This record gives sequence, structure tokens and C-alpha cells, in this order.
Amino acid sequence: MTYCLGIITNSGLVMAADSRTHAGIDNISTYPKLFDFSVSGERAIVICTSGSLSLTQGVVTRIHRDIQAQAAVNLHNCATLYDMASYLGGKIREIQEQDRAWLKKDGIDFSCRLLLGGQIQGSEPELFLIYNQGNFIQATSETPFLQIGDTKYGKPILDCTLTYETPLNVAAKCALLSLHSTMRSNLSVGPPIDLIMYAANSFEIKHRLHLCLGDPYLLVMSQLWENALKQASEQLSEINWQQDGYHLPNERYNSRITPTVTSFDPKSLMLQAEDERE
Amino acid sequence: MTYCLGIITNSGLVMAADSRTHAGIDNISTYPKLFDFSVSGERAIVICTSGSLSLTQGVVTRIHRDIQAQAAVNLHNCATLYDMASYLGGKIREIQEQDRAWLKKDGIDFSCRLLLGGQIQGSEPELFLIYNQGNFIQATSETPFLQIGDTKYGKPILDCTLTYETPLNVAAKCALLSLHSTMRSNLSVGPPIDLIMYAANSFEIKHRLHLCLGDPYLLVMSQLWENALKQASEQLSEINWQQDGYHLPNERYNSRITPTVTSFDPKSLMLQAEDERE
Repeated sequence: MTYCLGIITNSGLVMAADSRTHAGIDNISTYPKLFDFSVSGERAIVICTSGSLSLTQGVVTRIHRDIQAQAAVNLHNCATLYDMASYLGGKIREIQEQDRAWLKKDGIDFSCRLLLGGQIQGSEPELFLIYNQGNFIQATSETPFLQIGDTKYGKPILDCTLTYETPLNVAAKCALLSLHSTMRSNLSVGPPIDLIMYAANSFEIKHRLHLCLGDPYLLVMSQLWENALKQASEQLSEINWQQDGYHLPNERYNSRITPTVTSFDPKSLMLQAEDERE
Repeated sequence: MTYCLGIITNSGLVMAADSRTHAGIDNISTYPKLFDFSVSGERAIVICTSGSLSLTQGVVTRIHRDIQAQAAVNLHNCATLYDMASYLGGKIREIQEQDRAWLKKDGIDFSCRLLLGGQIQGSEPELFLIYNQGNFIQATSETPFLQIGDTKYGKPILDCTLTYETPLNVAAKCALLSLHSTMRSNLSVGPPIDLIMYAANSFEIKHRLHLCLGDPYLLVMSQLWENALKQASEQLSEINWQQDGYHLPNERYNSRITPTVTSFDPKSLMLQAEDERE
């Protein structure tokens, strides 16, 4: 599994990725999933990848080849980040056309997703998520982050702490905390962690971090964070438990049970099942 | 969707459930998912349900009928919690035998899971998770909580804050925070929240809470918690960014690319795809 995230704020971008790959729990490896294609002073471009490693490596290789071959369209001559997202969608489609049928034959997952963050001279910083199908969405100030891979464990911390106005250094720490939450609960997401912080209008990635397993900062951060959570949960005001007038849910529930299906009617069963799902 | 959790500590049990059901995002309803089958002074029994509402309501109805009919095996005469878990697994299998084929015909999901927590005179408190297949697992002091439904958003807070030694009132607050994290990120999990706290060896559920949408405690808790998280993330020590000697991931990556598949060999492609997954 993978966890990558991108954050956009009014002062720049943060992008982060884990490096763990697996083919079953007994087969764990390390591959980078964060790639920097910037042209210093002119355009900042960072890409994160998730999904089938054979597909994402294929995409990254094709991006490099197009740049080296000075192809008609490549990441170094696209006029906008939107054009880059569209180009990346095209690369995903290319490699899917080549491999998808063969992977499908053997029931092998053929999905991948990309994050693209960056800025070109003359434009604002932007952040995109490119889907497996080649279409894409863009982060906005209302929802200033995008995630790929196993996104759920790391989302609550982002939902609670991030806004478009969050200072960039705090956003970078939130990204690490989001990765920490994910790594804590999902063994298939793991270090090294790659993190970059891009200050708007600098057109250069000046802040990079490559945190390995056991890195002192990771350990200290993890401990400080868990202590802060423990303390916060202990210090919440005490629950005001109900003393009377409370009806147990099953009493409420029982009062509503009336056997409506008296004869066996598969259609009515199906509609009931469709109607409600806990 | 649903989110229910059970926590066991050295001083008792906490169990909590949301009440939202849905059949698509445009069809939201409210049904209780936490049920109290206790016999005051003799046995405390609390069950939480997730999955297809038609199946879980069927299970709960059969539990009630067996108690009312004083069936040979029912929740009020089982000698142990283990026997109760086994009985509940049997009830799930019964209803699956009745409905599964019909649901499967139309591609309707037929899964459900239960949590069972409680204590019988002469035994310690115990907590079980009963799977859709009728088999079950038990929480231990090493992992003192079990979850059903959409479990990921609410797991990091439990991983970070809970141990078997956590005081029961703090565990109850952690349960609410875990539900809060889930409701914040997943609209299909929502109030009212049902929460119970059971003190070991009391053989009576004395602490109950039914929190509706907009309940002042929920609002205050949510605000206090989010402020605490924001503050904690801001106060983490600053990141010590790498200044030199750092190699971009794609440089490392590029140095490893060697085109190994020169002729088209589907088997080698398949093995590669199987080998690694980000």
C-alpha cells in the first residue's frame, strides 16, 4: 500500500510520500514515490505516485524520456499545471493500453493514481490528483489537500488542523503527522518518508527531507504527538451521563418492529435490503 | 455506513455506535445499532451491529424472541460470554441461510458484523467481534478495542490514546473522539450516538448517553479537540530540513532503471506486476 498527500496553502505547497511497497505481507520493499521534475527558477514540479509499481514506474520513465527527447509535449514545456495534469493522464492511459488486458487476465490490480503539485512562472501554485482513468481534479482553498493510496487513517488530522491559511511550516508538520497516523495503523505504509515544502513564487524546491526508519525526529514527533493526544483526551470535559428518562435503544427499536413480510416475497426482501444499509 | 466500537480496560467496558443508515447518499435514515440485553445484577450484555440492516434487524429480533420464548439457548441462559458469541454467530448463519441466495442474485451486499461486550457473575468482562461468517475473535489487553463498520478514520486516535490501563471515563471520551473523527470524514456515519460505560463487577449498565445532532456536548467536545490538535501540531518541534547531500528520489530511482524486459513476455510482466504494489 501507499500513502501520499499534497497540501496547498496561500503560501505554497507541501508534498509527502512513504516508500513502502508490498506484494503480500511477507514481501516488503522500498521504492521512492515522490519525484521532483523542477527546472530551478522557472518551474517547480513534484509528482507522487500510488498503485501498481509496474505502472507507476512506467509512467515516471516515460516522463523522463519525453523530457530527455524534448518531445513536443513534456513536463518542461507545458504552459500550465493543467496541461501537465492532462499530459500525465495521457501517460497513465498509454501504459494502461499496453498492460491492462494482460493484468486483467490474471486478476491483477492495474490501478494507479498521481499527485501533481507545482508552479510555473506567471501562474499561481496548483495541486492536482490524476485518476487511473486519466481524468483529474484540482485542490481548492476550501479543501486544501489531496491524498492517494490508503487515505483514511491520515485524513482526520488534516480535516481538523488544515486550512488554506495554515502557515507552510505547520502544514509540513501536519503532513508528517498524517503519515505518522497512517504508518501507525497500516504496516504496509512505511518509511523512508520523502517530504518537500515549496514556498510560493520561489520556483525552486528548497526544503527537502528524507526520513528513515528510526530517525530521531520521527521518534520524537511520534512521542510528542501521542502525548498531546492523550493529554487532550484526558482534559476534555467529563461526560454528563444521562440519569433518567433514557430509553434503551432496543426498547425504542422493539416498539417499531412489526412483521410486515408475512408471506415469502423475494422482491420485497430485495427492496428492503436495498433500502437500508447500516 | 456504520461505525461502532467496543473498548475493554481493567476497569470495565465502553461501547458506542452511530445511528445513521443509508441506501445511497440521497437516502439517509436513523436506526439504533446499540442494544442492551442485560439482566440487572446478574449479567451485563451489550451488542452493536453493522452491515445490512435487514440482516442485523433479523438477528436482533431472533435474539429477543429466543429470550421471550426461553429457548434452550438464549442470551439470558448462556453460561459464558464465549457461549453468547457462539450463539450470535449461529444467528447470523441462520439469517444468511435464509436470505443470502436472494440478495446475491441481485448483487446486494449481505454482510453484517456484531460486537458483544459484557460480564456474567463469576467471570471477568469480555469483548468479542462476531464476523459475517459466524466465527469470532476476542479483544485482549494488548489490543483493548474492537471496531466494526468504517473503522479507519477512528482508529488512529484509539491507537494513540488507549491502553488496557486507561481509566474508564477517559476511555469513554476516547470512544466519542473516535466517533467524532469518523463522522467528520464520513457523512454516512452520523448522530444520534449511543454510548454506554460499564464498570466491571457492577452487573448493571449505569452510564448511558444518547447524543443527538447539535448536542452541546458534541459541539464543545469537537471544538476543544480540534483546537487541541491544531495547537499540538503547531507546537511540534520545527522540521530540521536537509541542506545538502540529499539526492532527489528520482535520481536514485533513475540510477536503478535498466530495461530488463526486451522482448514481450507476458509471464514476466505478470510476475513483475505481482511482485510489487505500492
